[in-house]
Amino acid sequence: MKLWQKSTAVAAEIEKFTVGRDAELDLQLARFDVLGSLAHIQMLQSIGLLTQEELEILQAELKNIYKRIEAGDFTIEAGVEDIHSQVELELTRRVGEAGKKIHSGRSRNDQVLVDLKLYFRHQLQNIVQEVQVFFEVLQAQSEKHKQVLLPGYTHLQVAMPSSFGLWFGAYAESLVDDMQMLLAAYKIADKNPLGSAAGYGSSFPLNRQLTTDLLGFESMNYNVVYAQMGRGKTERTVATAMAAVAATLARMSMDLCLYMSQNFGFITLPVHLTTGSSIMPHKKNPDVFELLRGKCNKLQALPTEISMLLVNLPSGYHRDLQLLKENLFPAFAELKSCLQMMAYMAEQVQVRADILDDDKYKYLFSVDAVNELVLQGVPFRDAYKTVGESIDSGTFTPPAAATHTHEGSIGNLCNDEINKQMQHLLRTFNFERVQQAYTSLTAE
Amino acid sequence: MKLWQKSTAVAAEIEKFTVGRDAELDLQLARFDVLGSLAHIQMLQSIGLLTQEELEILQAELKNIYKRIEAGDFTIEAGVEDIHSQVELELTRRVGEAGKKIHSGRSRNDQVLVDLKLYFRHQLQNIVQEVQVFFEVLQAQSEKHKQVLLPGYTHLQVAMPSSFGLWFGAYAESLVDDMQMLLAAYKIADKNPLGSAAGYGSSFPLNRQLTTDLLGFESMNYNVVYAQMGRGKTERTVATAMAAVAATLARMSMDLCLYMSQNFGFITLPVHLTTGSSIMPHKKNPDVFELLRGKCNKLQALPTEISMLLVNLPSGYHRDLQLLKENLFPAFAELKSCLQMMAYMAEQVQVRADILDDDKYKYLFSVDAVNELVLQGVPFRDAYKTVGESIDSGTFTPPAAATHTHEGSIGNLCNDEINKQMQHLLRTFNFERVQQAYTSLTAE
Amino acid sequence: MKLWQKSTAVAAEIEKFTVGRDAELDLQLARFDVLGSLAHIQMLQSIGLLTQEELEILQAELKNIYKRIEAGDFTIEAGVEDIHSQVELELTRRVGEAGKKIHSGRSRNDQVLVDLKLYFRHQLQNIVQEVQVFFEVLQAQSEKHKQVLLPGYTHLQVAMPSSFGLWFGAYAESLVDDMQMLLAAYKIADKNPLGSAAGYGSSFPLNRQLTTDLLGFESMNYNVVYAQMGRGKTERTVATAMAAVAATLARMSMDLCLYMSQNFGFITLPVHLTTGSSIMPHKKNPDVFELLRGKCNKLQALPTEISMLLVNLPSGYHRDLQLLKENLFPAFAELKSCLQMMAYMAEQVQVRADILDDDKYKYLFSVDAVNELVLQGVPFRDAYKTVGESIDSGTFTPPAAATHTHEGSIGNLCNDEINKQMQHLLRTFNFERVQQAYTSLTAE
Amino acid sequence: MKLWQKSTAVAAEIEKFTVGRDAELDLQLARFDVLGSLAHIQMLQSIGLLTQEELEILQAELKNIYKRIEAGDFTIEAGVEDIHSQVELELTRRVGEAGKKIHSGRSRNDQVLVDLKLYFRHQLQNIVQEVQVFFEVLQAQSEKHKQVLLPGYTHLQVAMPSSFGLWFGAYAESLVDDMQMLLAAYKIADKNPLGSAAGYGSSFPLNRQLTTDLLGFESMNYNVVYAQMGRGKTERTVATAMAAVAATLARMSMDLCLYMSQNFGFITLPVHLTTGSSIMPHKKNPDVFELLRGKCNKLQALPTEISMLLVNLPSGYHRDLQLLKENLFPAFAELKSCLQMMAYMAEQVQVRADILDDDKYKYLFSVDAVNELVLQGVPFRDAYKTVGESIDSGTFTPPAAATHTHEGSIGNLCNDEINKQMQHLLRTFNFERVQQAYTSLTAE
Repeated sequence: MKLWQKSTAVAAEIEKFTVGRDAELDLQLARFDVLGSLAHIQMLQSIGLLTQEELEILQAELKNIYKRIEAGDFTIEAGVEDIHSQVELELTRRVGEAGKKIHSGRSRNDQVLVDLKLYFRHQLQNIVQEVQVFFEVLQAQSEKHKQVLLPGYTHLQVAMPSSFGLWFGAYAESLVDDMQMLLAAYKIADKNPLGSAAGYGSSFPLNRQLTTDLLGFESMNYNVVYAQMGRGKTERTVATAMAAVAATLARMSMDLCLYMSQNFGFITLPVHLTTGSSIMPHKKNPDVFELLRGKCNKLQALPTEISMLLVNLPSGYHRDLQLLKENLFPAFAELKSCLQMMAYMAEQVQVRADILDDDKYKYLFSVDAVNELVLQGVPFRDAYKTVGESIDSGTFTPPAAATHTHEGSIGNLCNDEINKQMQHLLRTFNFERVQQAYTSLTAE
Repeated sequence: MKLWQKSTAVAAEIEKFTVGRDAELDLQLARFDVLGSLAHIQMLQSIGLLTQEELEILQAELKNIYKRIEAGDFTIEAGVEDIHSQVELELTRRVGEAGKKIHSGRSRNDQVLVDLKLYFRHQLQNIVQEVQVFFEVLQAQSEKHKQVLLPGYTHLQVAMPSSFGLWFGAYAESLVDDMQMLLAAYKIADKNPLGSAAGYGSSFPLNRQLTTDLLGFESMNYNVVYAQMGRGKTERTVATAMAAVAATLARMSMDLCLYMSQNFGFITLPVHLTTGSSIMPHKKNPDVFELLRGKCNKLQALPTEISMLLVNLPSGYHRDLQLLKENLFPAFAELKSCLQMMAYMAEQVQVRADILDDDKYKYLFSVDAVNELVLQGVPFRDAYKTVGESIDSGTFTPPAAATHTHEGSIGNLCNDEINKQMQHLLRTFNFERVQQAYTSLTAE
Repeated sequence: MKLWQKSTAVAAEIEKFTVGRDAELDLQLARFDVLGSLAHIQMLQSIGLLTQEELEILQAELKNIYKRIEAGDFTIEAGVEDIHSQVELELTRRVGEAGKKIHSGRSRNDQVLVDLKLYFRHQLQNIVQEVQVFFEVLQAQSEKHKQVLLPGYTHLQVAMPSSFGLWFGAYAESLVDDMQMLLAAYKIADKNPLGSAAGYGSSFPLNRQLTTDLLGFESMNYNVVYAQMGRGKTERTVATAMAAVAATLARMSMDLCLYMSQNFGFITLPVHLTTGSSIMPHKKNPDVFELLRGKCNKLQALPTEISMLLVNLPSGYHRDLQLLKENLFPAFAELKSCLQMMAYMAEQVQVRADILDDDKYKYLFSVDAVNELVLQGVPFRDAYKTVGESIDSGTFTPPAAATHTHEGSIGNLCNDEINKQMQHLLRTFNFERVQQAYTSLTAE
Repeated sequence: MKLWQKSTAVAAEIEKFTVGRDAELDLQLARFDVLGSLAHIQMLQSIGLLTQEELEILQAELKNIYKRIEAGDFTIEAGVEDIHSQVELELTRRVGEAGKKIHSGRSRNDQVLVDLKLYFRHQLQNIVQEVQVFFEVLQAQSEKHKQVLLPGYTHLQVAMPSSFGLWFGAYAESLVDDMQMLLAAYKIADKNPLGSAAGYGSSFPLNRQLTTDLLGFESMNYNVVYAQMGRGKTERTVATAMAAVAATLARMSMDLCLYMSQNFGFITLPVHLTTGSSIMPHKKNPDVFELLRGKCNKLQALPTEISMLLVNLPSGYHRDLQLLKENLFPAFAELKSCLQMMAYMAEQVQVRADILDDDKYKYLFSVDAVNELVLQGVPFRDAYKTVGESIDSGTFTPPAAATHTHEGSIGNLCNDEINKQMQHLLRTFNFERVQQAYTSLTAE
């Protein structure tokens, strides 16, 4: 039974077509729906739309529901349309008509908007924390293997000496830039839309600054038309930030798949982390890296899908926006599991120490040879020509070893400086503000 | 327990990460997996890899499983990796070791390839049939409303007279071109990959033409490397064809949403096909058309997602390809339900007969007025100027009515000619060949 | 000075913003604009809107312009808005007011629609012909190198024996499926929209079948609303077909880049087809394959761009559609040059004959070893286990050589069958019909 | 003649295929290439790779070239491959062999990386400044029209009262969130890659912190492998931020196109800002808004195109990356002109003051009517039912006027608060740092 149901029955098929997977997806919003209601009713009381007594009764029941959600003991009953209806239903069962008052001065749309913002903020925090864990693994691996040389490629051709220190460290630094995108998405999510009603505000004298503070938002979406316009836009921004992280994971996975090929042979995995073949008894396949690559490449299509839903829609709410949840909500869990799996696998990777002994890598040091001549005073063009000729005639002998010392080079990885940038960004999120607000709202 | 399991245990987490949603999605392949096996074992017997007796035992059991699948009485048991393992498990339970012989001369990869081709062929047939139903509704509505005029817009500005006959008929004709894309996708799906093994063929003397005939394929993917390369490519083509149909539905939905707006008011829906608002008692919203639009716009992002998985992967199988199922499989049901819902709704739409009585549409006939002068011998530029001045000075009076007679115009819709094109395309699919093959394979 | 210019001046900036790159892109339409006009005026005469004398004067001048275009001796003058205006301008300069009569019963929109269809048909023909050339190169290389074995990979891991015969041949067969998409696009382009005016038809008694025949179209877009709706849709279909070809080229380029890496070393290129490095004297880079890959990957984004322009636009013309030209027009030349370059390079590729001598490929034959046991009567599972154990214990010895004989395998490439499919598809285009129509229209 | 040219001639066709549009696009990099060289040589002198005398000679010539570039008096000569070669050529013409020393300790790749970062930073600054101008126009229009009511729509159905104050103001606030994305992109661009050589660093004792400071970068891409990996990633981020701005413009354009339709009639444009029709004398089309919409929708496909180039490429430079310039470089000018045009047009828009007098908007106030009852003590459900029944029975009378007072509502737009957020973000860019660095580098 829907809130807006009128006397005419809506056909069951229409029902099925329109409700879709809402109940399933909405369960993820439950916790945030209750938090939003807790803030809303406190505000309603402050402007005289609830009595203090009503407020207390409602708070007690909502906090109770909140606890059940946290305990995993809350479901959307069959026949109940969405999370908002389920919460209202439980309230009215216990406290009667007063339960319906949680909707005063709010539309369902309004509720969805704030639930989504709280949910995205929460999921971004999860992602940020997993990125941090993975970052630490990469930095540790970079330090651990900083002496192990690796051929560096350009055009997939053997080019110059690299190292596992550089290679692991590069992906760590990539996460720093990805964090910048996560921060932008978080900042955009961290604004309160509550009070925008159906996207045009309300004739009730709402106090939106109060709910903004109670919910630990940094600020609010002031303009109510913009608050509504943020639907879809917030999703696209969040998806874009996730795609940036995914792109880093996918590229690293591609490297790892190549490095595991017998034609590179730079790394191995413990055999229990590989899979076999139904017909080839010799196979040890890097399925995990391939699935990481594929899952993360799929995630990079998410912003396009979201854009495809939004492009050319005039302003104002459209039911199409409901569909934004379908692929975005599962994407959070997907990216999280990819980050966890990659962090685990990156720790298990066994690097080969003697890669450069292979003859095919002997020209790696040709630039260093040229540079050596230059440092002895030979003009670059001449040095280049001399070394080139020694290569063509087969007389080239590489210098002893790579002695690269400048910032970010084999001999000077600057992992500390990179870590400083990461720590600075992490502090900027200020997750504590949110934590404190939630604690206050739900304290008994 | 997996077929390729070796002595070392694969960690449970890896298991979960790699298996993903395969069991759930694979159930849709069950019927086709059995058909593929029925063809394969008949071929194995023909080349001496199965005895006639073994063949008959296996056939009996496979046909039995097939019947259970058709009856909805088949599931993948917990702990069983995929559909192929489940079928093998059931066979070995009943006929012992002989059950495993269905895999001789095949790899699992090979099986997946042929299952997918059969599945896509089947789903495309479903889509084609729903398109046909919807096409007929549109043509009927076009004929029914051919006298009802509608403003035609360019630049969203009132432009020239149109009609519901033209408007419904246009979407019918759009489906004819979409059918061309479905046909191309079907032709690409309708080639047998079975016998390509892991993508490099087999040292067994397989008879691939025989399985091609038994499964009712038009032809085969000859080159085994190409048979494997078709994975992903087939999916992309199928998704592209579905996106074409979806684009037609989405655009029609957008028109309908506009036409239902009070600012157009060209159509109405029975109230039970609209939805209300939790705060606005006057609302009758066209949610179904909005969801149709949204769902169909999402479908248009599917080819991009698939490309994102495939781009820059070298040839040869990669585990990433397993992920192709995740959004494509549900898309078949989604598009099918959209086609059904749109066909239903298009029949329910009530058109307003007196739209053009509104003054804001009076300039619709300005071109007809110009043309009238031209047919009387006035040069076009002069006629254009004369009518333009009468509009600017407010003295313009429109001609009596639209008398358009050429092919495809208001007075001559050519629905029959359009239907002929549709019928011609439908015959080209030749679904009967497949039906006959399946009947032969599964007959007792 | 624009055709529709009224007394009020349009600001120069608006002019620049709205006209964009039209003049430059429109030049490619010139030839087709004249062909469309030649058909249109012949039709106008047939329904009495032109006298026979006027027709002949206009025909003479249009044929003259056509010859100049073919000779590369035609430009859009500065200040002239587009190709249609330029042709009209030249006509009126020579034959006075009668020149303007070519527009009777047509809108500019109408003209653009037919020009585009003729242009796409032409460009698709070009692409088809280049695909055919490339196909022949691939088949020839496949036959030439059919004895040269290559490791086949799954999961980028050494898997089973393949061959250059298979590898070249696979890409040839890929082009057969791509041709199916080109055919669908061609069929959709090969329908006449002329006579749809601004998308709502005309009160003139046009004979659209006549212009359909004169322009060599297979059929027409009957419904005038659909004729307009085909704008964008046709472009998307054409781009999709091009993307299919591009995907084949891109994947082959990726293979080639890997195969040229020192870590594979399967092929080499003549040194003048590689490029060097500004700092590394030993480098011989496969830039051409990388650019082929990149250009062809970019082309695969074109359908998304087109969809982004179209999604959620209501029916009827919108000026946005003008922008469809900007990236699509250059894409034809881009894909054509990629096909030519790839055909050239594929012929120059030098394959290494002794690849499989390397020890790392010795397990390639493990499946053949298993199969050998199976053919001797050992159950598959036991054979698999035996060979697996011999590999683990280092005692595995591969069989003599790959003796694969089934359709599409190393020893039986089926290039002839694949060629038959290609030839069948090529005939279906029926380019002769168009050629004959154009010859008739432009004959003196 | 290329720097890395060896004795073997590269065929002209290959040349054309590989060089592409580089010369044309590179001209935009000229200024930044010189700035990069000025920083690099000062660093070279500091580590003893240039004498003070050489430094001064090179500085004088580079500053001279810089002035010529600023004056528009610099071109890439025919036959010169790219901007880097042109600068070197000019230097050697004037100062002989010493001119070549600007490349010591750098690869061409390195130079391109730093040129691109400087260029993106510059273009983002341009975009930011145009966004700011447009933001001010929107805020001014919001204040100017804050009393003019507008119907607010949900589901494209008349819903609740809105205002032009809200509508203009919403787009201003949208730009604040877009600015957050521009900031993230700027932060990512604002890191120095110089010194990464071919992506693996150098054996020269470079001082990368020095060039970082000289070029006014906030920080550097420390890890040299990551510095190279930033190619493409930076482009994608920049394109994503531009797409966010474009999405705001496109949506506003869609609203405006609807509002200009006779079916809405909410706004008009001065006639010289509209365009006419070649066949319909009454048309006044909003082509500028349609082109804005289309151009901005196209821009939203740019991140997908970039992803398509990058996905699955292993780490290390690939020539594909050269193609990133082709659509991204023109996009800066495109977005800039869209922002300018929209700012201009938004000022010209004339709003209709009496929109709500039309009867079809009378139910706009139904929620306010419900709320009025609620404020009088009637429970929400009862109030909703009462008003609903008055609407169904035709007895509904709307309240006097909208008296919305909460933050961000019709009566309390909070434009100042929104402006404060914008100003805060603008300061964060710190464009002054860059300006000071450039002034120091180029001062004589």
